[in-house]
Amino acid sequence: MANLLVTGQSGRMGQAVIRCAQDEAELTTTATHDVGQDLGESFSGADVAIDFTLPSLTDELLRVALEQKKPLVIGTTGHSDAQRALIAEAAKQIPIVWAPNFSVGVNTLFWLTQKATQVLGDDFDMEVVEMHHRHKRDAPSGTARRLVEILCEEADRDYDTDCRHGREGDTGARTKKEIGVHALRGGDVVGDHTVVYANDGERVELTHKASSRDTFAKGALRAARWVVDQPVGLYDMQDVLGLR
Amino acid sequence: MANLLVTGQSGRMGQAVIRCAQDEAELTTTATHDVGQDLGESFSGADVAIDFTLPSLTDELLRVALEQKKPLVIGTTGHSDAQRALIAEAAKQIPIVWAPNFSVGVNTLFWLTQKATQVLGDDFDMEVVEMHHRHKRDAPSGTARRLVEILCEEADRDYDTDCRHGREGDTGARTKKEIGVHALRGGDVVGDHTVVYANDGERVELTHKASSRDTFAKGALRAARWVVDQPVGLYDMQDVLGLR
Amino acid sequence: MANLLVTGQSGRMGQAVIRCAQDEAELTTTATHDVGQDLGESFSGADVAIDFTLPSLTDELLRVALEQKKPLVIGTTGHSDAQRALIAEAAKQIPIVWAPNFSVGVNTLFWLTQKATQVLGDDFDMEVVEMHHRHKRDAPSGTARRLVEILCEEADRDYDTDCRHGREGDTGARTKKEIGVHALRGGDVVGDHTVVYANDGERVELTHKASSRDTFAKGALRAARWVVDQPVGLYDMQDVLGLR
Amino acid sequence: MANLLVTGQSGRMGQAVIRCAQDEAELTTTATHDVGQDLGESFSGADVAIDFTLPSLTDELLRVALEQKKPLVIGTTGHSDAQRALIAEAAKQIPIVWAPNFSVGVNTLFWLTQKATQVLGDDFDMEVVEMHHRHKRDAPSGTARRLVEILCEEADRDYDTDCRHGREGDTGARTKKEIGVHALRGGDVVGDHTVVYANDGERVELTHKASSRDTFAKGALRAARWVVDQPVGLYDMQDVLGLR
Repeated sequence: MANLLVTGQSGRMGQAVIRCAQDEAELTTTATHDVGQDLGESFSGADVAIDFTLPSLTDELLRVALEQKKPLVIGTTGHSDAQRALIAEAAKQIPIVWAPNFSVGVNTLFWLTQKATQVLGDDFDMEVVEMHHRHKRDAPSGTARRLVEILCEEADRDYDTDCRHGREGDTGARTKKEIGVHALRGGDVVGDHTVVYANDGERVELTHKASSRDTFAKGALRAARWVVDQPVGLYDMQDVLGLR
Repeated sequence: MANLLVTGQSGRMGQAVIRCAQDEAELTTTATHDVGQDLGESFSGADVAIDFTLPSLTDELLRVALEQKKPLVIGTTGHSDAQRALIAEAAKQIPIVWAPNFSVGVNTLFWLTQKATQVLGDDFDMEVVEMHHRHKRDAPSGTARRLVEILCEEADRDYDTDCRHGREGDTGARTKKEIGVHALRGGDVVGDHTVVYANDGERVELTHKASSRDTFAKGALRAARWVVDQPVGLYDMQDVLGLR
Repeated sequence: MANLLVTGQSGRMGQAVIRCAQDEAELTTTATHDVGQDLGESFSGADVAIDFTLPSLTDELLRVALEQKKPLVIGTTGHSDAQRALIAEAAKQIPIVWAPNFSVGVNTLFWLTQKATQVLGDDFDMEVVEMHHRHKRDAPSGTARRLVEILCEEADRDYDTDCRHGREGDTGARTKKEIGVHALRGGDVVGDHTVVYANDGERVELTHKASSRDTFAKGALRAARWVVDQPVGLYDMQDVLGLR
Repeated sequence: MANLLVTGQSGRMGQAVIRCAQDEAELTTTATHDVGQDLGESFSGADVAIDFTLPSLTDELLRVALEQKKPLVIGTTGHSDAQRALIAEAAKQIPIVWAPNFSVGVNTLFWLTQKATQVLGDDFDMEVVEMHHRHKRDAPSGTARRLVEILCEEADRDYDTDCRHGREGDTGARTKKEIGVHALRGGDVVGDHTVVYANDGERVELTHKASSRDTFAKGALRAARWVVDQPVGLYDMQDVLGLR
């Protein structure tokens, strides 16, 4: 049983982590921290911290963790290059999990897509479909973009040349190389992603459906459980999930 | 029990009709016709004809049907305007079912889409997704286009202005009016179509999946069963299916 | 613009209604009510009330609404037979929308299923699939049960005789009459439902996916907007949505 | 370029192999064989044989292949134990690919399911859904059964104890260990399979959809292309696809 510090207790992700931690058998939230409180004191009774706050807390977080020789799980984004270097430096003395997306499912989808493309990429036509809420301003989503990158890496395609973001008119027959990318928008969909591999007579489809941001909190808790037993080093969710 | 004449017995659709007719309880194929045979003789022992051939047969088919006062099911496409007028004229003396698509499922989808859009069209975001084989040269499919037209008719959208055939880059938030249209291509998919209605907290999806051209043959047989009991007139599959 | 009273302001559904009402153009929440407050006073400045509380409030709610001659939207469940009679009686003097499920999408699915079954029910094999969260204790869900009832009503099946709740072993070929019913359980899925119609060469699928209980709040708000303009009478969501 | 012998040229699978081989760049069908013809002569000009016939041909096929020291792809099923031993024995002198299912997609699905379960099996609820045509007499399908076996192997479940083939009535909450297995039947569906992994806030789904038996022919051709370059040994499709 490890004791957990959650920073940003009043933030949206901090609250999600605290709520989800109540279902954990191997972790107890023994401390929380918010702006204005003493971080060293908050961390003193805990074995590991999960941080989804702002880059402005990162320097102090690293300083305290190094002092107390305690592992970190960092989900905060938007760091400066200098801060990114600081994190990497700190990871020479303490174990740190640092990732842009803590969803177990999305990270598993990335890995399965890599594997599937190694087998199917030469013969099967590949398309990516995603759906997000009506407020999303960019297309395709970052996750869809990463999926397409994996297809390109594993099956010798080029992102800029081979992607077709929608089709209209007299398109001609599909080329072997092209990757169709389709961004649906509507309602308040948190995020659906599907990779389609199609050949004559069969299709393989890999799908992830997110319905709540709790999935990110749960991934961070999984990382915290894992990192307390790790040697010094810098890790991401692929490491936590054993997807190497 | 009605006796059936199938024209174009060696054609792809003629063969499908003959094969599927073997499962019919209320229809027996008692005659077939191919190029070079006497159509009047072929038709003499039958109560109704199903025609999936070429426009070049249509004039003679109408002439014989009018002479023998027998109903027709016409699935042949590509008629000239003059021929289209001939068909309409003939339907003043005999019952004729004439349709571009005999699939019961697709016609039902059209009708359900009309109904659903009347209820959901004002509040829900609407998107259409279709997938076809890699050889298809145009996008979206004719069926997808018809689905979008129904959305436009029932929810006051404009096909040319409001369709978004794919999304890429900094698209901004989805507007209320836009209809996303997404054409996937791959493998040998006969044809999948889905209409998505999305609002906060819920989605309704209407889907048709075609896996074989037999579906068109079966629809034509259903039309033949129906038309033998109809008064003189020109009908389409919506009439056959009672979707008015 | 109508003024709205929301009862049970601290309840889960009451809070959802209040939150969702903020996006309404034609409704303003001008009053809320909780246990211990005077309901007559709360209702005095409002034009219509939405009630998702407990049957223990119903008698007083009806009394006040009758006194003030104001319409009601009742989503509370678990009434006694006597209370159900009281509601019906009150509806002779005020307009009342009373429904077990206020989701626009689910009610639309019910209606589309009715229509689709009228067309497809004789020839297509029918199956119902639903998925709910791991805590759900009964199967199939009430909504799935209602869907199957619709299939039975429209296609001359019998619920008790023709349902197959799962298949295992040497089942033999599917009979024409049977309706497969499949209840998946897992995660925290709010509720997915699909009706599958399958015939040779094609399938039609009607799907509803709920991702949030806000959908019920929004349906109740739609009912409130509608009921303020209705004559005295007892209505349900099919009436509100014009699905008769 | 390798020369191919196809046995059972008039059989359903033999014809599919011959038809699909026309699209192969590295294989040419130079010989076919049917009952009554001399197998040694048929095989003499070929480099490899694909056999989807009956066990009654297997003894002779092995004898000729051993004589001519040529590799085999065996898709025939229903062998006796003695024949199975003969095949294994022959594989000490020639390379043989022997598999019950040659679909690239299904074999990839097996492998991805193994990988996914290693990551997700402890935390995610697992369910398997399959759909097949109305004539199928057994449930679940052999492929679904194999998928469930993989879940059991990788996540410490027991097939007989933990499977729930459908749910009905007051089931209570889902246990962590149970695996729901759902067999839909309808129309002429060749075969759809989905493995669902569900946790709070997210789902991962792995799906295979077969639409034609050509997929098995294509898998056998892939095996033939591969086996001509292999050392002596007994292989299955996992080997061909590099899924070890």
